[in-house]
Amino acid sequence: MDEQSFQRLRPEGDDHDRLTCTTCGFIAYENPKIIAGAVVEVDGGVLLCRRAIEPRSGFWTLPAGFMELGETVEEAACREAWEEARVRIAVDGLLAVYSIARIGQVQMLFRATLAEPGWAAGPESLEVRRFAWEEIPWPELAFPSARWALHRWWQTRGQPLGAPATNPVEDPRGTVPLSGTAL
Amino acid sequence: MDEQSFQRLRPEGDDHDRLTCTTCGFIAYENPKIIAGAVVEVDGGVLLCRRAIEPRSGFWTLPAGFMELGETVEEAACREAWEEARVRIAVDGLLAVYSIARIGQVQMLFRATLAEPGWAAGPESLEVRRFAWEEIPWPELAFPSARWALHRWWQTRGQPLGAPATNPVEDPRGTVPLSGTAL
Repeated sequence: MDEQSFQRLRPEGDDHDRLTCTTCGFIAYENPKIIAGAVVEVDGGVLLCRRAIEPRSGFWTLPAGFMELGETVEEAACREAWEEARVRIAVDGLLAVYSIARIGQVQMLFRATLAEPGWAAGPESLEVRRFAWEEIPWPELAFPSARWALHRWWQTRGQPLGAPATNPVEDPRGTVPLSGTAL
Repeated sequence: MDEQSFQRLRPEGDDHDRLTCTTCGFIAYENPKIIAGAVVEVDGGVLLCRRAIEPRSGFWTLPAGFMELGETVEEAACREAWEEARVRIAVDGLLAVYSIARIGQVQMLFRATLAEPGWAAGPESLEVRRFAWEEIPWPELAFPSARWALHRWWQTRGQPLGAPATNPVEDPRGTVPLSGTAL
């Protein structure tokens, strides 16, 4: 890739600079991307995946990933659960919406249960395990938002889901870098 | 723009084809984009904008638009309200999340009130008006999702917001084209 051919230029009538190919004029609009995922309850505990890929390879997280074109948010969460944890889930409702402005993500995390028994590591996971609440490896979680969502799940367990959680007071815009969080 | 230079190719290890520049190798990942917007209550009615731009120029809609990098979803809704309706809003909560798979959008629509008095047409609006519920010009709404969100707003008025609405039964994946809806 010729990095030099792309420059940040302002299209006519726009109020943001856009990544523009100075060779062919292609404008690559960059907007926040949606991460869809789920806290999957199993016998009162939750499923976590140990990441086989960067960032944060070797750390534990929720099954979640980039939503693709042509699917709904709920479908994306189900697909990611299958891809990363080889688990078929039933989505109960929207647990949380976190804006992570630092990295241009909106994370939409659902509460879910097993639709079919069983799970296994998908290609992007080293292992997938059920953890009881008191077993969750908090210092080894990959991302602050996984911690936030797990706490929200714990608060709402056994209850109907109301309004989804949003960013916590500790990081109201999702701008704290990984190294600045209490992992 | 040289349209021919971009082709849909599958990067190694990926499971989707991606828009790839065959000249320089740039991959333009295309994921769903977030539309952030608000149903803004004014004296028991709602603010609507008559669109000055395509698509659906001349039709009425909620103040809403593409979320940009570096902001939260709530900030995007507030910015769009200012840009399109020159109104400063206070976001109350998430009214609805609609996946519009046909056009690769996830629409996140908030319930809001005025933070400051006054509104006016922004550059992308022909006019902005307050409508009482019985005055809403249903046949002249720009998008089905505006109709859905307005009905949700009406159902939840005066009550705490619970779980956000999702796509209605009439269009569970947001795949019905404009011409196929009862506008």
